[in-house]
Amino acid sequence: MKLLKERILKEGKVLGNGILKVDGFINHQVEPGLMDACGAELARRFAGVGATKILTAEISGIAPALTTALHMNLPVVYARKHKPITMPDQVFLTLTPSHTKGRTVELIISPEYLAGGERILIIDDFLATGATILGLVRLAQTAGAEIVGIGALIEKLFEGGRSTLKELGVPIESLACIASMSEDHITFCE
Amino acid sequence: MKLLKERILKEGKVLGNGILKVDGFINHQVEPGLMDACGAELARRFAGVGATKILTAEISGIAPALTTALHMNLPVVYARKHKPITMPDQVFLTLTPSHTKGRTVELIISPEYLAGGERILIIDDFLATGATILGLVRLAQTAGAEIVGIGALIEKLFEGGRSTLKELGVPIESLACIASMSEDHITFCE
Repeated sequence: MKLLKERILKEGKVLGNGILKVDGFINHQVEPGLMDACGAELARRFAGVGATKILTAEISGIAPALTTALHMNLPVVYARKHKPITMPDQVFLTLTPSHTKGRTVELIISPEYLAGGERILIIDDFLATGATILGLVRLAQTAGAEIVGIGALIEKLFEGGRSTLKELGVPIESLACIASMSEDHITFCE
Repeated sequence: MKLLKERILKEGKVLGNGILKVDGFINHQVEPGLMDACGAELARRFAGVGATKILTAEISGIAPALTTALHMNLPVVYARKHKPITMPDQVFLTLTPSHTKGRTVELIISPEYLAGGERILIIDDFLATGATILGLVRLAQTAGAEIVGIGALIEKLFEGGRSTLKELGVPIESLACIASMSEDHITFCE
């Protein structure tokens, strides 16, 4: 997606250790026009998968999942990383390593909002190693729901998430796929 | 706002200790149509305040702030509760008590995205004691920015946030103001 790639080239900063800083328009400050355009494009690409619900993980998955949900008119559930007091005792919970946090985090979903038979479209800001998305996949499968697609704003192809997720046999889409990056250059996939 | 109040009456659960559970459409699962309508209404009410940026706090402030931002075409910044590695060493940080977490949490904003001269509209999911919103006010004021309005989806009038924030002298709007609530009854403000 041209608009997103241009913005990454203009404002993204490669910090080393495979970290791409996009805090100015995705992760801390959100540019609503751009995020809405990304949601519209993800909705277009997944229009045919028959999704009944969008699933993401807090925190930075919320914005792209919500704008995609707006364009598909589907409810969105965001997995929590800490169990709020409003959640029942019995929950779906999985552990996943967090690259940017350097530790393991919990992903928690209430069974109230993830039921068997649902057709789940997973949307996140980044597809990197695929660890967070795999955590969401485990939660959905535990609930008896089916994964029908995986979408991300930015993919770091060199971190291998796509090949890990490929065996799920569902469409995987990213709006800006990065083949390689260094402090002074970002190369997008062909 | 009729749509939101009806949904609260239909699906909200009063859990005791002043906790209103709205996880089915605001805090865990988000109903995009309702959230978009709330954003449109907040945008309408704050159309005249001359805001240049919307400020909120992760996690559950993100959805209403984003839909409001979409209707006002303004960037939105969400204060982080944990400093990500993409953030510079020098940040704006304040501590605020969290009612639902039962402890003190940090609110952190990068100076890259909060500058002097900005006119800040604060949007959050709840206006309860006002503690989180006051934390955001402190961060904005430290940056030299001006608060021009405060909006929330749901206000719990009996927790006193409005009277605490009143001295700021800015418009305060909530879409569903609750005067009192018990396990079997919710009374909205006149």
